[in-house]
Amino acid sequence: MKAFAALKQRLLEVDDLQGAANVLRWDQATYMPPGGAPARGRQTAALARLAHERLVDAETGHLLDGAAKETASLPFDSDEASLVRVARRSWEQAVRIPAPLVSEFHEHTAASYQAWTEARPQSDFEAVRPTLERTLELSRRMAECFPGYDHIADPLIDFFDYGTKAADVKRLFADLRARLVPLVRAIASRPLADDACLHQPAPEAEQLAFGLEVIRDFGYDFHRGRQDKTPHPFMTKFSLGDVRITTRVRENEFTDSFYSTLHECGHALYEQGINLSYEGTPMATGASSGVHESQSRLWENQVGRSHGFWEHYHPRLERAFPRQMQGVSVDTIYRAVNRVQRSLIRTEADEVTYNLHVMLRFGLELDLLEGKLAVKDLARAWRERFEADFGIPVPDDRRGVLQDVHWFSGPIGGVFQGYTLGNILSAQFHGCAVKAHPGIPDDVRRGEFGVLRGWLRENVHRHGAKFTASELVERVTGGELSIEPYLDYLWGKYRPLYGLREEERQGAGVA
Amino acid sequence: MKAFAALKQRLLEVDDLQGAANVLRWDQATYMPPGGAPARGRQTAALARLAHERLVDAETGHLLDGAAKETASLPFDSDEASLVRVARRSWEQAVRIPAPLVSEFHEHTAASYQAWTEARPQSDFEAVRPTLERTLELSRRMAECFPGYDHIADPLIDFFDYGTKAADVKRLFADLRARLVPLVRAIASRPLADDACLHQPAPEAEQLAFGLEVIRDFGYDFHRGRQDKTPHPFMTKFSLGDVRITTRVRENEFTDSFYSTLHECGHALYEQGINLSYEGTPMATGASSGVHESQSRLWENQVGRSHGFWEHYHPRLERAFPRQMQGVSVDTIYRAVNRVQRSLIRTEADEVTYNLHVMLRFGLELDLLEGKLAVKDLARAWRERFEADFGIPVPDDRRGVLQDVHWFSGPIGGVFQGYTLGNILSAQFHGCAVKAHPGIPDDVRRGEFGVLRGWLRENVHRHGAKFTASELVERVTGGELSIEPYLDYLWGKYRPLYGLREEERQGAGVA
Repeated sequence: MKAFAALKQRLLEVDDLQGAANVLRWDQATYMPPGGAPARGRQTAALARLAHERLVDAETGHLLDGAAKETASLPFDSDEASLVRVARRSWEQAVRIPAPLVSEFHEHTAASYQAWTEARPQSDFEAVRPTLERTLELSRRMAECFPGYDHIADPLIDFFDYGTKAADVKRLFADLRARLVPLVRAIASRPLADDACLHQPAPEAEQLAFGLEVIRDFGYDFHRGRQDKTPHPFMTKFSLGDVRITTRVRENEFTDSFYSTLHECGHALYEQGINLSYEGTPMATGASSGVHESQSRLWENQVGRSHGFWEHYHPRLERAFPRQMQGVSVDTIYRAVNRVQRSLIRTEADEVTYNLHVMLRFGLELDLLEGKLAVKDLARAWRERFEADFGIPVPDDRRGVLQDVHWFSGPIGGVFQGYTLGNILSAQFHGCAVKAHPGIPDDVRRGEFGVLRGWLRENVHRHGAKFTASELVERVTGGELSIEPYLDYLWGKYRPLYGLREEERQGAGVA
Repeated sequence: MKAFAALKQRLLEVDDLQGAANVLRWDQATYMPPGGAPARGRQTAALARLAHERLVDAETGHLLDGAAKETASLPFDSDEASLVRVARRSWEQAVRIPAPLVSEFHEHTAASYQAWTEARPQSDFEAVRPTLERTLELSRRMAECFPGYDHIADPLIDFFDYGTKAADVKRLFADLRARLVPLVRAIASRPLADDACLHQPAPEAEQLAFGLEVIRDFGYDFHRGRQDKTPHPFMTKFSLGDVRITTRVRENEFTDSFYSTLHECGHALYEQGINLSYEGTPMATGASSGVHESQSRLWENQVGRSHGFWEHYHPRLERAFPRQMQGVSVDTIYRAVNRVQRSLIRTEADEVTYNLHVMLRFGLELDLLEGKLAVKDLARAWRERFEADFGIPVPDDRRGVLQDVHWFSGPIGGVFQGYTLGNILSAQFHGCAVKAHPGIPDDVRRGEFGVLRGWLRENVHRHGAKFTASELVERVTGGELSIEPYLDYLWGKYRPLYGLREEERQGAGVA
């Protein structure tokens, strides 16, 4: 196993550089003073370039060949054979993109992120238009490094949801949309849930403390992580021993910080649950964006927006915010945190309308990449399509095309579909967990999450990226990704909440 | 200027890696959860190794030769000729030490630091004795990479105070000691100043806010910096646009956080004042340890411990700590922050006794390097010499030989002399500034620091490492480093404070 050992050492060096680059990005988002931006762009780009050079080095190819021979007789799901398989995949993706394009892209996105943080509060799309045009051009050039694709988005999707094709996503989204739209319409015909209890001023320190209390119960390991504040919440990893999350706090919107904390904790539980022996290898990450998102959404929604959850945390919430929660019942909170309303911001959207936000972005991305839509028309196209889908006008670009960080910190294309894949998978995985351990809903009611977390760790987390998303889904569910459990979950929850009638499920009875 | 341009590009790459490594070290000291430690050690070492490899690469030597030819006709103090000169110096220092010795040294000091953090609280010198013996051996081997030295400490001193010889420092320290000891004795014969006002409980947030208010007035640029908390305060730089400081807070010792903030701000003002066109080159740093320390000590002591300073900040201090400062006059504060007392810990020592701490360490270092003193006898030698110098016994090694991190995180030799060189230079530079602008003391009385900072920026800061310490001192003062201004400063301040008599200055009249 000489080649295998040398391969592991080389992958560790690549991983150390990537981990270091993540520290620099985290610092840029949390604490870096504005004056640090120009050098930070260069520094992060330098590390990304060195990691890339070390990975794509011809010697890596030889080591992969040698290690493949050494592990040829091992079973498919042995750690050693899997490492060679997964490493070859990332190597093959990396060797295709020329090093100068990699650094150009990283340097550009650092500047682009900075430009976005300035343009968004001003609602100034024109200020970032040239930046976005360059992002689109660079995204296309990256895709073009993988000739033979069916759709130009496919190579970009491969970076996040390996093996998923734009055509599959389009089909899946069409099916899901056909089933979601009647549900949205039916709920919209009912009176809005009252969520006034969530919009009372709550001090930042108490908001943060309550979120931290809950994720400590979930099992987030603070010895191997911490939470800081950023404008846009995220999870990042510097090593399996250092998996951090961030949140933001709005004084009058308790749930903004709270559910982002639960969400990022879900991501972090995944990374913290990876087999520690995978440290320093490309297996020490999630299987795909979609699977990652399934974990964040599961803890945020299936757990954190359940009635049982609030049965347990209602008294604690009252203790944390005695004035604000006076006379607010469990049912009121439950209805409030599950209020469905067509609204402007994806990250604040309810579970039912959320996927329509994703579909909007995915559609725009495909049109941009295909050349059907120019960046100069993007803000307008956003407003038009949003109004068509949601029936409400977009008052400004801050709450329109500028709301998400993604196009300003990465490629255009490849990332948004993961959110909806995650929603779909969260219901599939949660369903399997409850089937294996029917006591889980009662556990949640008692604030006990060990069995659920243990099942997820055993079936999903520990494998890291050892299996592709579809291999993992097959192992866990015995089948393929399916929208049915997700639609069943939504119907099961929202039918009683909004007093829907069975015939409304398929859009019958709605004008 | 092709070689020159290529050289600058290469130096920028080295600088980016060093800046990135500094981000990782800063994060480790400020926010990193404990679980991050193993990977962080690897990551930082990887960046340091890559920076070193890139610098010592043979191609750097060729570029230096080419750039030297291209800049041969330019004046000595042109930026271009200076860059080639300064870059060659760091390159020549780096290439002399074989790469295996560099990594051996870094690996050893990482382990050594760890051993120290465990041994110090236990006061267990024997636990680190073998570690220190290895450090001494490695320090000697590093020095031996530079044959032809006058004293084996000289090459080590060159890393921190380039061009300064052990023999010069010994002479300087002997002269200074002969003049300081009578002053210390004279003050010790007077009653201790009352500093009870500094030892009242003060909330952390208010302590931090007050320090930040003062350094904002000093001119610390928060657009290009920030302050965080660490167990040991330091200044670090990721680029000229990102120069950070740290402090620690002790509830009952207001001055610990306050003066460390002023001290680190002095270091940071130096770095923030460097000519921005030097970014990414080895000129974008201080001229030497001694010159750097002169800037921190100037703002901490000549400014921050002056009577005029407290005349301005006394009302603000009262506002910040109304309960603690009730009935405390400017004079009481002034006397308290300038209390002189022979004590055990260097970092807590007053201005008068501080240098005796440095001399103790410097003397021990020389004896160790010369082989006159064995590591096994170091703790005993420390106790004996300390008691001889300070007249107080050392109760344990925690407050003796184990108190400073330096010998456990770097070589033995080269670093301590910079503290006293800095004290001496702080008085010389401050004297020159006041000579050029006699209104400076009145400015300080009004909380205005622009003229002083401007003079320092013009005469010291902007040059960065363009000139060596002695070149810079010659340019600024028209002469050499001299202890007279420093002794005049001390005498001028402490004579009235302690009611000393003129004849006590030279030790006359003291038993």
